[in-house]
Amino acid sequence: MPVLVMKFGGTSVATLDRIRRAAKRVGVEVAKGYDVIVIVSAMSGKTNELVGWVNETSPFYDAREYDAVVSSGENVTAGLMALTLQEMDIPARSWQGWQVPVKTTSSHSAARIEDIPPANIMNKFAEGMKVAVVAGFQGVSPEGRITTLGRGGSDTTAVAFAAAFDAERCDIYTDVDGVYTTDPRICDKARKLDRIAFEEMLELASLGAKVLQTRSVELAMRYKVKLRVLSSFEEQSDEAGTLVCDEEDIMESKVVAGVAYSRDEAKLTLLSVADRPGIAAAIFTALSEAKVNVDMIVQNISEEGRTDMTFSCPTDQVARAEKALAEAKSKEVLNFSEVVADTGVCKVSVVGIGMRSHTGVAAKMFRVLSQEAINIKVITTSEIKISVLIDRKYMELAVQALHDAFDLDKAA
Amino acid sequence: MPVLVMKFGGTSVATLDRIRRAAKRVGVEVAKGYDVIVIVSAMSGKTNELVGWVNETSPFYDAREYDAVVSSGENVTAGLMALTLQEMDIPARSWQGWQVPVKTTSSHSAARIEDIPPANIMNKFAEGMKVAVVAGFQGVSPEGRITTLGRGGSDTTAVAFAAAFDAERCDIYTDVDGVYTTDPRICDKARKLDRIAFEEMLELASLGAKVLQTRSVELAMRYKVKLRVLSSFEEQSDEAGTLVCDEEDIMESKVVAGVAYSRDEAKLTLLSVADRPGIAAAIFTALSEAKVNVDMIVQNISEEGRTDMTFSCPTDQVARAEKALAEAKSKEVLNFSEVVADTGVCKVSVVGIGMRSHTGVAAKMFRVLSQEAINIKVITTSEIKISVLIDRKYMELAVQALHDAFDLDKAA
Repeated sequence: MPVLVMKFGGTSVATLDRIRRAAKRVGVEVAKGYDVIVIVSAMSGKTNELVGWVNETSPFYDAREYDAVVSSGENVTAGLMALTLQEMDIPARSWQGWQVPVKTTSSHSAARIEDIPPANIMNKFAEGMKVAVVAGFQGVSPEGRITTLGRGGSDTTAVAFAAAFDAERCDIYTDVDGVYTTDPRICDKARKLDRIAFEEMLELASLGAKVLQTRSVELAMRYKVKLRVLSSFEEQSDEAGTLVCDEEDIMESKVVAGVAYSRDEAKLTLLSVADRPGIAAAIFTALSEAKVNVDMIVQNISEEGRTDMTFSCPTDQVARAEKALAEAKSKEVLNFSEVVADTGVCKVSVVGIGMRSHTGVAAKMFRVLSQEAINIKVITTSEIKISVLIDRKYMELAVQALHDAFDLDKAA
Repeated sequence: MPVLVMKFGGTSVATLDRIRRAAKRVGVEVAKGYDVIVIVSAMSGKTNELVGWVNETSPFYDAREYDAVVSSGENVTAGLMALTLQEMDIPARSWQGWQVPVKTTSSHSAARIEDIPPANIMNKFAEGMKVAVVAGFQGVSPEGRITTLGRGGSDTTAVAFAAAFDAERCDIYTDVDGVYTTDPRICDKARKLDRIAFEEMLELASLGAKVLQTRSVELAMRYKVKLRVLSSFEEQSDEAGTLVCDEEDIMESKVVAGVAYSRDEAKLTLLSVADRPGIAAAIFTALSEAKVNVDMIVQNISEEGRTDMTFSCPTDQVARAEKALAEAKSKEVLNFSEVVADTGVCKVSVVGIGMRSHTGVAAKMFRVLSQEAINIKVITTSEIKISVLIDRKYMELAVQALHDAFDLDKAA
């Protein structure tokens, strides 16, 4: 039998009624002849409650105990989903991470899946079981302790199972009905995409479109897992949602697939840094040790042996970044005159694999922003993406103007 | 290091504050030099919530999935307790049933512990860990699935660990401060016992005194585990609570140790049953197959080849019992004229190992009840217990009168 992986997020299993609705969707796929692996998250709110208890108990907690506690929410949903399917006369059972087993590294709370031996579940499929319900987000370390994959890790669990079981597709059921050209909440012309390439999805995911966890897209790209994002709140056809797939599977595509944004960005500039080899390494080593997630980096033109260095990071890491830089300066690892922080910026990006072969996308983007009198503070580019840092108050305007300019409201 | 087992019930770990208070008690024992095994229940209310979800999802649930779901509450408490101890600088870690492993039979929701290999936990003690926090109530079947021991099973977990680790004592922390001569809520002269024999505790437990689960007392008796019941809400000395121990360890004991009662009893009488060999077997096989918990059984004197058969069972099983008997009659497995049910009765018992060597206890009990004009409907006796079925409205009166008559308000 072909295997299908279906993943239901926290809002899709938030109540017993919603679990029943999800189970019905599973029943539709079973009726088509699939052996189905269902990956479930915890009922929405449960994981936050557990995380809250851990933080209140122990602010600098032992991550092994954190994992033992927070993984329990998925176990509950897995059992309830299996029972719901049984009530529908569909042979099903639940599996916790250690039972499959989902073998991970020992990096508690941020573990990576190393192996999912399919034998146990495949044997049950051979015996007539139709659905294996697996608790997402969790695994077991070589030491036999429970691990978790980090927040949103159930998407990664789902893709890893699809790869391990050579599944025909991995369907991610969520509270939106697919991937959009941009966020419909700030641009009413946003249009659902039928297909999007892995590379584009990866850029959108890491740029703040919260539909899929970045790691799950990376994994899907590496193992060529066909990934579909669709809503658990609507009746679904085989063509529903958005298929995340290989570039070759997209017949016609636009130069730009979508406009992404990230609201809580900050821009920090180190003024008058000594311009000598190793200085960038010194700066970003200090920041990395302080666990500051640096995103964009720009170095200004050097004058008389001094330069300015600008970078961006999430707003809530600015204090940590300033402290790390001040310490590095006091230890004479670094030399600069001052740090200027601008916490009122945001990042807006256009993404599309078509940029590889089309020129002029950047020029068009800058022209559109200029026509709206939006000042660009930092620019970075990759092969398939152009990002700019602008004042946060222009965010919606910029997204809407770019969406219009690249005709994203019209199908390819 | 000597090993101590400490068990905290649901009310003792109901909030993060209570978990902290329990952890402080654990700290006191660690400071005395013990390696401590802490057995925890789920936070009070959690297991009921999970059971409710399972019942709503699937009224005739798969017990394997029930176990997978309801065992999760203990996992949360175990992790939080380990974190709390770590915050107090006490080396601790949590263990789920399958990690120890607590090996059980495959009788899901009513599994029996078969083996607890101590090696994993002892190795950690040897490495310097001071406290192993174990999720109570759960284990793992030979098939690798999660099992539970039935409600109240954490007491059994605690005693089984005390036996497996040859613990010096097993302390059961609960919301009462020990075992009483009778229920203080219905007899204000009830007195806390310093010590009670296993056999007596067993009779009290099975007669409705809900301090300890019956199976845990049986297990303690078999493996000679010193069991102490004490309150988690008071400062405790080494002599606090009630020690459940071997008869030989009780210096002076009274003939009667306590008065127990069970409120929701029903009396059923089959009138005019053919008095021939095998008839009792036929009746009680039919009831057993209908899962009726028959307690007391009395057969009247036979007249002309017919007899009356009386038995008691919990009130909520009367309908099931009547149905089973009617079916047996219709299949001609049984023959009787009618079933008379009396659902307004209760059971009152006096318990004491002293009865073995003292005569006259039964006579005294009947005399006391007679002086209060309480009619006795059924009598059963064991070596160390006399039970009577009486009208429920006399229950408090009977308990108080017997408590007075046997001087239970005075120490031995």
